[in-house]
Amino acid sequence: MIKPILIKHAAQLATLASKGKGPRSKEAMSELGLIEDGSMWIEGGMIKAIGTTTELEERYADRLDEAEVIDATNHLVTPGLVDPHTHVVYGGSREREFEMRLEGASYMDIMNAGGGIHATTRMTREASEEELIEQTTWRLDSFLAHGVTTVEGKSGYGMNLETELKQLRVMKKLQEQHVIDLVPTFMGGHAVPPEYKGREDEFVEHLINDMLPVVAEEKLAEFNDVFCEKGVFTPAQSERILDAGKRFGLIPKIHADEIESYGGAELAAKIGSISAEHLLKASEAGIKAMAKSGTIACLLPATALYLREEAAAGRKMIDEGVAVAISTDCNPGSSPTTSMPLVMNLACISMRLTPAEVLTAATYNAACAINREEKVGSLEVGKQADIVLWNVKNYQELQYLFGVNHVKAVWKKGVKVV
Amino acid sequence: MIKPILIKHAAQLATLASKGKGPRSKEAMSELGLIEDGSMWIEGGMIKAIGTTTELEERYADRLDEAEVIDATNHLVTPGLVDPHTHVVYGGSREREFEMRLEGASYMDIMNAGGGIHATTRMTREASEEELIEQTTWRLDSFLAHGVTTVEGKSGYGMNLETELKQLRVMKKLQEQHVIDLVPTFMGGHAVPPEYKGREDEFVEHLINDMLPVVAEEKLAEFNDVFCEKGVFTPAQSERILDAGKRFGLIPKIHADEIESYGGAELAAKIGSISAEHLLKASEAGIKAMAKSGTIACLLPATALYLREEAAAGRKMIDEGVAVAISTDCNPGSSPTTSMPLVMNLACISMRLTPAEVLTAATYNAACAINREEKVGSLEVGKQADIVLWNVKNYQELQYLFGVNHVKAVWKKGVKVV
Ligand SMILES: [Zn+2]
Ligand SMILES: [Zn+2]
Repeated sequence: MIKPILIKHAAQLATLASKGKGPRSKEAMSELGLIEDGSMWIEGGMIKAIGTTTELEERYADRLDEAEVIDATNHLVTPGLVDPHTHVVYGGSREREFEMRLEGASYMDIMNAGGGIHATTRMTREASEEELIEQTTWRLDSFLAHGVTTVEGKSGYGMNLETELKQLRVMKKLQEQHVIDLVPTFMGGHAVPPEYKGREDEFVEHLINDMLPVVAEEKLAEFNDVFCEKGVFTPAQSERILDAGKRFGLIPKIHADEIESYGGAELAAKIGSISAEHLLKASEAGIKAMAKSGTIACLLPATALYLREEAAAGRKMIDEGVAVAISTDCNPGSSPTTSMPLVMNLACISMRLTPAEVLTAATYNAACAINREEKVGSLEVGKQADIVLWNVKNYQELQYLFGVNHVKAVWKKGVKVV
Repeated sequence: MIKPILIKHAAQLATLASKGKGPRSKEAMSELGLIEDGSMWIEGGMIKAIGTTTELEERYADRLDEAEVIDATNHLVTPGLVDPHTHVVYGGSREREFEMRLEGASYMDIMNAGGGIHATTRMTREASEEELIEQTTWRLDSFLAHGVTTVEGKSGYGMNLETELKQLRVMKKLQEQHVIDLVPTFMGGHAVPPEYKGREDEFVEHLINDMLPVVAEEKLAEFNDVFCEKGVFTPAQSERILDAGKRFGLIPKIHADEIESYGGAELAAKIGSISAEHLLKASEAGIKAMAKSGTIACLLPATALYLREEAAAGRKMIDEGVAVAISTDCNPGSSPTTSMPLVMNLACISMRLTPAEVLTAATYNAACAINREEKVGSLEVGKQADIVLWNVKNYQELQYLFGVNHVKAVWKKGVKVV
């Protein structure tokens, strides 16, 4: 029998509870549902009660002896963080390529040395399921240590049916084995594989006719994502891929307007994509369309930093009424990190979000972006007890004291895992 | 009796040993003295032997039983990091000001709410020695957890004799109490205090005639630093302050060319400053002068990030022959962080240093910048056993997998402290 847990005397308990449902925009992104001297009763992996310490100690007066008591005096408590956009399953490591680039190697030097995304594709194709599970486990452990209790993960380094399925099966196994909640997305449309160069439409056909049905049949993914970008997939091709996914019950997501303004935000709104990713170059019209359609902007400021790009216009998007979520974009090329705390800091520093908006973007809105807001993303009675205890006294300090992982403890479904 | 320690089978032991003496520039910044399958014998807090595992196991064959053995298989081992520029001793906390700025408050709003550097001065003046010791201890613990075993700290939030002395005495006590090596710098010339507004030269006289002699008499500092910047201290005033310090045996340092190109780098070279700090706007001539004089450029990329400024031209400085060190600049206004690992990542990402140069900048050259290279900054026989064991397999990965504190264990003078 696992004991019930009483967390008490939290200097700030940021519940993220709110009356509204669905993604939060504008002022709602600043509603943290703060409770001072906050307390929670956790039982059976769920949150059973929330309130002030006085309220809960009174309510559970006759059961206090049974409980494991956590004194959170001087500490902030929040929901477990949610990372709604990662490419966490991949083979190999590219640190030597990183060094070569800094030593002055050109793009062609790196390609000739077997680098770039095709290096990851090759190494992911070559890796066994066991190897991928081992590598990914290491990264999921790091996510947990950084306060992340739910992670989305994409296929997309296979670019052939066999390896795409391997990546998705690895996620399915990890979902069973690992304490973290891992939410799978099919992203066969990540790039056009070398063997289809010049025959992009054929690859789209192949993806729609040969890959999607198998993924759906085996129930290996909930979302279908595509890289809509000049030189990768056009908006028309992207729309075909996402429409086809819908027919198989897969919810659309879209990598949009990262490198050029290409109509990706507009397409996301038109097709009813649950989220649009990156958006560094999203057009004015695209942002307004997303605000209207309720498409979540999933912004990736660590990727912008790593690539030395201007971050997405997060401040403007919120002011225009777009619901914003943030994510690590964890991947071996443009964002090899597992630190959501750093991403939150960068959302303040480089996108000018406020600390309150950032916390919403990394919890409740992030949960909405992967259709999990009924279970996680806020601390409310009946939700999973996914909780982080932080080594800071308020939510402002969590962003102000930047570059440091302030996690002190993490509970996943009521079990202490960090 | 403390047992001797044998660290063995390090995938990479980056000793940072080199034939040359003094700050390293150009190619010498890439000489990491790497040993594969590396090993060290530690006794009495010192490094007694370094080599391959085979070599050391043979050499200490008859004493292996006595030793505590650390298996570093698959791990990188480096010297303890050195942070050569911090304002780690200060009172209060300014997270609410950080939030106000993101909520759109103007500079005047913040000043009216009692914010800015003068808020820290007020709170530092008000804090007792005990309070400052408590707060600073918390930050020094965090430095250690991030692999930093030697930290420079500056006064400068007092701007009157009483509080400057209080900050320096706090550092002296912490040097006795805390395991970290704390190296004190007097920085009475951090800003002109409000009570001297319009009488800057009088303040310079006061600093030279009333503060410096007491600091020197009580042996409270080794270095003398000044903020040479338009609107703070002119190059002429800065030179007077640093010259006066020299007469008292204090080695000059200088905050130079952070906001405007103001002749700070040139002055640093002219006066024989051991280092010049920030240098975001250093002139071409200033950089060349520093290369010639051997003045170390102490670069602070986390501060640039936090202030959304273009980072200093670290790549160019190295190419021009300047020895570069890097630092957190830990302070409550423009860089509230204790993470040297993040600073190293940023030195790659935003200053285009290579992973090898970054490691030199954060260890050996950083030690040179605070006159400690005889004791720390590299792993060599006879030096202090200040050592970090990292959760990565090579020095490239330490920078490539960014935003994460990869520290697995830290030894300070041969004692495991993390
Ligand atoms: Zn992505
Ligand atoms: Zn400074």
